[in-house]
This record gives sequence, C-alpha cells and structure tokens, in this order.
Amino acid sequence: MKTDIEIAQEAKIEPIIKIAEKLGLTDDDIELYGKYKCKISLDVVNNKEENKSGKLVLVTAINPTPAGEGKSTVTVGLGQALNRIGKNAVIALREPSLGPVFGMKGGAAGGGYSQVVPMEDINLHFTGDMHAITTANNLLCAAIDNHIHQGNLLKIDSRRIIFKRVMDMNDRALRDIVIGMGGKANGFVREDGFMITVASEIMAILCLAKDLKDLKERMGNILVAYNLDGIPVYAKEIGIQGAMALLMKDAIKPNLVQTLENTPAIIHGGPFANIAHGCNSIIATKTAMKLGEYTVTEAGFGADLGAEKFFDIKCRYGGLKPNCTVLVATIRAIKHHGGVKKDNLNEENIEAVKKGIKNLEKQVENIKKYGVPVIVAINKFISDTDEEIRIVKEFCDSIDIKVSLTEVWEKGGEGGIDLAKKVVETIELEQSNFSPIYDSELQIKQKIEVIAKEIYGATGVNYTSMAQKQIKELEDFKLDKLPICMAKTQYSLSDNPSLIGRPEGFEITVREIRVSNGAGFIVALTGDIMTMPGLPKVPAANKMDILENGEIVGLF
Amino acid sequence: MKTDIEIAQEAKIEPIIKIAEKLGLTDDDIELYGKYKCKISLDVVNNKEENKSGKLVLVTAINPTPAGEGKSTVTVGLGQALNRIGKNAVIALREPSLGPVFGMKGGAAGGGYSQVVPMEDINLHFTGDMHAITTANNLLCAAIDNHIHQGNLLKIDSRRIIFKRVMDMNDRALRDIVIGMGGKANGFVREDGFMITVASEIMAILCLAKDLKDLKERMGNILVAYNLDGIPVYAKEIGIQGAMALLMKDAIKPNLVQTLENTPAIIHGGPFANIAHGCNSIIATKTAMKLGEYTVTEAGFGADLGAEKFFDIKCRYGGLKPNCTVLVATIRAIKHHGGVKKDNLNEENIEAVKKGIKNLEKQVENIKKYGVPVIVAINKFISDTDEEIRIVKEFCDSIDIKVSLTEVWEKGGEGGIDLAKKVVETIELEQSNFSPIYDSELQIKQKIEVIAKEIYGATGVNYTSMAQKQIKELEDFKLDKLPICMAKTQYSLSDNPSLIGRPEGFEITVREIRVSNGAGFIVALTGDIMTMPGLPKVPAANKMDILENGEIVGLF
Repeated sequence: MKTDIEIAQEAKIEPIIKIAEKLGLTDDDIELYGKYKCKISLDVVNNKEENKSGKLVLVTAINPTPAGEGKSTVTVGLGQALNRIGKNAVIALREPSLGPVFGMKGGAAGGGYSQVVPMEDINLHFTGDMHAITTANNLLCAAIDNHIHQGNLLKIDSRRIIFKRVMDMNDRALRDIVIGMGGKANGFVREDGFMITVASEIMAILCLAKDLKDLKERMGNILVAYNLDGIPVYAKEIGIQGAMALLMKDAIKPNLVQTLENTPAIIHGGPFANIAHGCNSIIATKTAMKLGEYTVTEAGFGADLGAEKFFDIKCRYGGLKPNCTVLVATIRAIKHHGGVKKDNLNEENIEAVKKGIKNLEKQVENIKKYGVPVIVAINKFISDTDEEIRIVKEFCDSIDIKVSLTEVWEKGGEGGIDLAKKVVETIELEQSNFSPIYDSELQIKQKIEVIAKEIYGATGVNYTSMAQKQIKELEDFKLDKLPICMAKTQYSLSDNPSLIGRPEGFEITVREIRVSNGAGFIVALTGDIMTMPGLPKVPAANKMDILENGEIVGLF
Repeated sequence: MKTDIEIAQEAKIEPIIKIAEKLGLTDDDIELYGKYKCKISLDVVNNKEENKSGKLVLVTAINPTPAGEGKSTVTVGLGQALNRIGKNAVIALREPSLGPVFGMKGGAAGGGYSQVVPMEDINLHFTGDMHAITTANNLLCAAIDNHIHQGNLLKIDSRRIIFKRVMDMNDRALRDIVIGMGGKANGFVREDGFMITVASEIMAILCLAKDLKDLKERMGNILVAYNLDGIPVYAKEIGIQGAMALLMKDAIKPNLVQTLENTPAIIHGGPFANIAHGCNSIIATKTAMKLGEYTVTEAGFGADLGAEKFFDIKCRYGGLKPNCTVLVATIRAIKHHGGVKKDNLNEENIEAVKKGIKNLEKQVENIKKYGVPVIVAINKFISDTDEEIRIVKEFCDSIDIKVSLTEVWEKGGEGGIDLAKKVVETIELEQSNFSPIYDSELQIKQKIEVIAKEIYGATGVNYTSMAQKQIKELEDFKLDKLPICMAKTQYSLSDNPSLIGRPEGFEITVREIRVSNGAGFIVALTGDIMTMPGLPKVPAANKMDILENGEIVGLF
C-alpha cells in the first residue's frame, strides 16, 4: 500500500494559477507562493459581499477513537465528488501545526486519494501564517514584560499575566518556566509558560475576524493581565495592536491549494479545538462561498465539540447559515462505543454495533436541534463487514436519516459520489433553519447549562470554587456576554473519556473559566487541557529527511 | 524630508518576474512570493558552476559611530550606479531580523533613494527564511530535552547543554530562564536561555553551506552539549538533521528583490556580526556572481570585523576571490575618531578630521594585507564642509588610494556614478591577489594572534583562565582547526569601545572560546556579547500601524 506522501507525489497537480482561473479569480486577486500555492486577496470576500453565496456543508463526526474518524479525508473526498457530479465545489480546511507533524504521525491534509497538495508544503511552513501568528503573539509578550521593566505605568501584576508566549513546536520543557532571571538588565523574574501556536488567542482571532480592522480591534481587546488593583489590562493599553496587525497583513489572506483531483481547497487558520473553537477562518469559508456553489468545511473533534462550536461560535460571528451537515462515522468507532477494546476492533461484532450506534443517534439529534439537515457518512475501512454496515444503514433508515457509504480514502472523489448526490438532494429539498442553541446574552452558567444538557445530555453542571470565582469576576467586569467555548474530552459526550456510547445521568464539572476577550468567547475547561504537547519517544522528525535531489522522505 | 517608507512607497517597482527575466532567469528558475519577491532555484548556482563568474566587490567601512556609516546604502547605491553606467550589476545583502525592526528604528534595506523594495515585506516576514531557521533551531532543542526526558541514552549532561532556543524578537525576559518545571511530565528542570534568531548557529550554517547536502551535514555537526563523561554530543547523534534540513528546503534558496531603480538585489541570510560572521549567504553571493557582471556585497560592522570575517571565513569557505573593496567613511565618523563629541559632529573641525583619519588609514592598510584593491567612498552628509572633504581626499591621494564622494542616499545611483567608474577602472587595471590572512590549520592562539596583531594593531593577546581551558578542550577533541570568528566591539580597532582613532600599544583579552562546529568556526569573545537584545522604553512597534486601506505607517 502506498503512503500518503507517495500518492501525493504522483498526483497530476496543476499550477495554482489554473485553479484560481477556474474560480474566476484574476491575477490581481491572487499572490503566488511558488507555483502551487497562492493567497487570495481580501477584496474577494469584502467587495463581493453583496453577491449571492454558495451553499455551506459542515463535515463533523461521532465521538472519535484516538485514530480519528477521517473527517478531513471525507471533507476532501466530498469536495472532489461534488465536482465529479458537475458541481462547482470548494473545500475549506484548517492549517496544520508543525508540532504534531514532527511529533506523532499525522497532519490535516486528508489521506489516501482524498488529500490536499502540495502536502509537504502545507504540512511544513505553508505560506507562513503560523509564523506570523507566533510573532504577533510573542511581540505582545515581549512588550508586556518590557512595559513592566521600563517602569510599569499600567501597574501590571506580574503574578497575574494571562497572555503566554507561544511556539509552533511540541516542546514540553517550555510548559512551565521561570523568565527574567539573571539580574536587573533582564527584567523581573516571574513564572511563565509557552503554549503551542495553534492554542494562541491570536489564532482564534484570525479565524473569527471579519477583516483587518476587526482583527486589529480584537487584538487590542485581548485581556493580557490584571493590574495590582485587580482590574483587567487589555492589549490596546500596551499600544502595539497596530504592529501586531501589521505582522498579520498577509496571514489574514486565505490560502488556495488543490486536492489530488484538482478541486480548489482554501486552507486558512487552525485553532486548537479545546481551548479555542477548532474551525478554519470565517474569511476563508466566506471566500469559498463566494467562489463555489458548494463549500465543504469541517470542525475539530466530534460533533458535540466541533459542530457545537462551529454553530454557536463561528456561524454566530460570521453570520453563516449552514445548509447541510455530514456526520462521519466508522464501524470501528461505533464498535468502540459498543464496548469493544482497541485490539478487537477488526473483528465483526454485531452486538457492539447495535449498542455503540447510540452515540451516532445522539449526535444526529444534536445537529437537528440547530435546524440543520444531517446525513450520515460511513467512512469505510477494510475490516468492516457487510452485516455491520447494513445495521448502521438500517438504523439510519429507522430514524429517517440519509446514509451513505464512502470510500474516498481508497477511491478519491469516485468513492464519495453517492454522498455528494445525497448532499445536493438534501440541500435542494430540505430547508435549513439554522440558529445557535443559546443566546449569548444569557448568564455564563445558563449558557454552559444549555450546552451540557441539550448537547452532552448531562443532568447538570458542577463548578469548582475557582470557576465560581472566575465567573463572578467576568460578570463584575462585564466580560460575560460572549459565546462559550467548551474545553472537554473529545472521546465522550461527557467530560469523562471512559464514558463511551450515549452516557446518561452524568454531570459535568467546570474546573476553570478563562476569557478570550479578543477572540470573543469564554472558555469553560472541564478536565485537564494540554496547551503544549510533548514529543514521543521516537518523534516523527527522526524519520524525516530531504535527499540531495530534493526528494522528501518520512513525511507521513 | 521624506521618510524611507514614503520614498519606497512612491517607487516605480517592477514585477519581479521582469527583473528575473533581465538576469536570464526562466520561469523554472524562480518561485514567486507575491508579485515583487521570488526565490531563485539552487540549480542556478549549482548547475552553472563551470560558467565564468562576475566580479565581486565588498563594501565595508571604518569603525562606525552608533548611527552607522551607511554601508548598506552605499552598497545599494553603488549597484544602481553600476547599472547606470551600463554594467550588469547585482547586489547581495543580508536579511533583516524582526527584533531590531520592532525595537529601535532601523533595518537592513538601505536608505533614502538607495533602498531595496518592497521594504515593508523585506523588514517583516520576507519569504520566511528567519522563521524556518527559528523552527529548525527549536526542533533540535525540543529533541534534546525530549531525549533526556525519554531516558537519556546519550547521557547528555543537562548542566552542559550549549545549544539554545531562539526567537526572532527582542525579548530580554528570555535571556536567562529555567525550563522543565511543573513536575515529571514536563521533563527535567534546567537553566536555559533564548537568543535572537540571527545569533543561531543554524543561520551561520545557512550562510556558509554550499548546498542542501552540505547544510544537512553541517547541521549534524553542531556541538549541542557534553555528556556526563565530558565528551561532545553532536546534533547528528540526536538524529534529526534530516528533519531540520527538510525545514530549510526553501530557506536555502536565495531571494530576489530589486532596488528603487530596479537593480536586482539578492537578499539572503543575516547572521549576527559578533558571535557569527555577519555576511549574507555564500549561495546568494555565488548566485549573484553567476547572474551579474558585478556583484556588490557588504559585511557587518567596520572592516576590522566585517571585512576580516568576510575574507577569512566567507571567502575561505566559498572559494571566493573578491576583486575590489570599497571602504565607506563619513566625515562625522572621522571627526568622532578625532575626538569630537556626538553633539558637536555637525560643526566643522579640520584638526579632528586630520586626527581621526588615522582610523581610515589603518583599515586601508588592513585590506591591502589581503591583497585586495581598495577605494575609499565618502558617504556625504549635509553637515560636511568642502574643506573637511578636501582633507580626506588629499590624504587618500597621499597614500595613493582612489577616493570618491558619494551622494547615494539623496540622489540614488546618480550619486554613486563616480564611485562606480572608479570601481570598474580599478578592477580592470588592478589585479586582486586575495588570500586569507592566516592558515586555519594553525593553533587557536596563533590564529587569534595574527588577527589581533595584523588587523587590530594590538601588541598581544591575553586569555582568561576559562578561555585557556576551553582552548585546551577544543584541542583535545580536535575541534581546533577552524577559522576564528572574533566577537569584539565594532566601535574601536581594539576591544575597548572608547579607544577611538588608531589605538596603539594595547592588548586584547579573550574572555571565552566557543565552537560553532556545524558552521565551522571558533568564536573568540572579547567583552560582553549580547545575543538577545531588549526593547527600548518606547519600542518602534508602538508607532507602527496598518490602516484599513492597507497603508503601512511607522515602519521607519
């Protein structure tokens, strides 16, 4: 079997200028980054705001196994399939982070015959967006410590600096550090820590900003610290949001690449799906919708996290009305939810399928609550048996939900034609009545309760005393009227990763509350959330190489 | 008077594809980064190795004042002037670092009507080379700490890790830090520190590498630490030089931009001029020499540091034979060397000119020791009087050195035509007999002594006991047969910044010895060398902004 990079290297990739032309983009609308990548001017989305927009399809999934459900692969495959049946489709994806690329094998460029290319560039520096975010983030950090060093006019409490430095790397040694050592010339000693770049609030801001002006305003509104009187200090008080926006002048423009079948793919922004909202940028999605009849996009983790945040945060801020949702499931994950251990997932187990399908049932119900039509896509694996597939199909029929077996990894767009037809049919026949599930003007606890009860199926929410105090603080400072960004395990509908299937009678515990005031959401943390991964015993980096002739090996 | 960015924004800039065409580059030889920047394929320098190369001109300077002598401006102006007199000239410069851009006003894109453009891109992320270096550097660091965390098979002594993390930022708080805190999951606690990216050995390697293979080998040869038995540990033992080279696959390609007068400028690499060698990349210089009749390049700081390292390190490794050297001087700096205080530099002072010119005399003598013809360029300022200029010219005549008054800041290439003619005449009439001033096979102390006595005019060299010990260690490990990279103040020929003019009867003190084994030089530190700058009270970043219409303000 060929590896992803071998398949990618064999692809007949077109010059990106050809792909851009097919979308009606002129030379002035794009900036080339080599022959196979370009940035699209913001004018495309801003000046054509009045035009009719294409249809929007969200690809999400049931609660995944650690191996993932193949959401990105189905997203790419569906886009390719839509083009095969004569529709003008554009894909909108997240940008991968270098950390996971060098850590564990993995990335966000799809797989098999449903990949975006040039994958080696997309998975490395791409067009530099991550680096721009890192730099803007760290400029703010350097300016904060410099402000304190130079006299601390704002009376920043160095014990309460919230905004952290970032690096696009898996580097556990930087999680908890002490900075400013070495004497007077190096500033004041304090505790600090690095996060991975995709966890930066700047990344979330990039993905939620409407335009450059909005981006700059949001960067100015970042709550960076509290002062010695306990009052919030915002980035704009440090006065470098202009320089930060300047650093982002190119990063804000969406990137255009293509799939193995030359379907246009806009890849832009990639915030963490736990402490941030896990979706590609609003600008990218809107640009795709200006350029294509159909835009296929995805959101991080399962539907209880990914789709919820897509609907309640991204669509709310972007004024987006999704037309259809595709819920990806694998037989393996359904069996996992039916209680099968990892090593036995390759064996047929009808009972486990019947039991585990409850997870899918709940996710379907959830999506319906947003008023958006839903289709189930079974992402086929070699180990799946006909009988297992039949049971899932039968179940979907019984709840009156369309279902499609996709083989996009193995067959590319060809393997997703049935799904594409069902998506088109659904959008043509079924009306989407999308609205978010809560009003952001509600109290923080009310909003969390709606999500916990309606989406997770919890009976209630507990708060630690720290979280209680933090909620009160945000209310006191009138920072509470924002959507909620839940940080929760992706493996369960509950906040306990071992509660598989469709758990009932559980409560969730909110351990901590943070505000990303620039991005515009309140993070509710349940369980431990890692914002800086580490490298494994043998990092993927150790297998990578570039040969004298330029050939790349070991990148997937 | 217009600011540099105002002048730059008014320039009639050509699409870079036109500039590339004029150099004989085809579509396959370049990769566009937007409309005004591109990268040049390595094939241009590698596959055309046998072709005749153009002439190489080094622009250097006398010991500068803190305001600088305008070396980059003269380099750009001379390139423009050579084109005006009908010669095909290409400029080769260093890339600016973001740290100084956001810290103090300054950059490395020339000034006035002798600038490279698009300066706002060149001074920000450019084509991402700095970010690639940062990432490759920090991947190695993360891998080192991960190696220790995962069992430390190499028995790395965490007290003796030499290789540091970097960030392209002025951030004093990161100079001295403690990492790995927070318990077992975060690795072992140890002291560490960040340097600015341009101080990274990876940057020096990029600038001295012949090709991708050489780059990878050099990265593998970085001495990263000592083990618990006191034996050197090299990067290749960590096993990620392949991934590091992969990260550098685009950064290794030289960048093509243009000057305000559409003269081609290759801008690539920019190592610190103290703990590294302060020259743009060998690949860039050789590419320029393949493409132009004349290549004009520069080296950081005054000739005692910049030209010395250019000759003894860059030319040695690159097999380059410079044809001519231009020594830039300002009347202000000459008066400074004559003892005039900063506030009085605008007043005519004939005696100070006569006295201070001794610095110029010594720098001319030094360049002659390398066998390279030298021309003095007086970079004109408004405050210079005719009489002051006459004295400098008269002095040059008296020592039989050509001299030219240049006004390239104010007049662009037009202001450098006389200099250009003299450069062409010199190269046509005078033979360059270049050779480095010492044999790298000599003992470390012998090599340092040659530089100190021959170039600085010192009577001898002292070593701290630490430096003595370090020299012995390098000799024991047979790491001593490398050229020397002196880290010394740029303000004096001695290691004492207050010794202006042409000091005599002084000794220099080598405080510390380090090896950059991958780059291929031994650093001899005299005095305190700062590898991570800090931000000033009001950073330049605070004045920068990008407006809604995309207009950039405050960037210079």
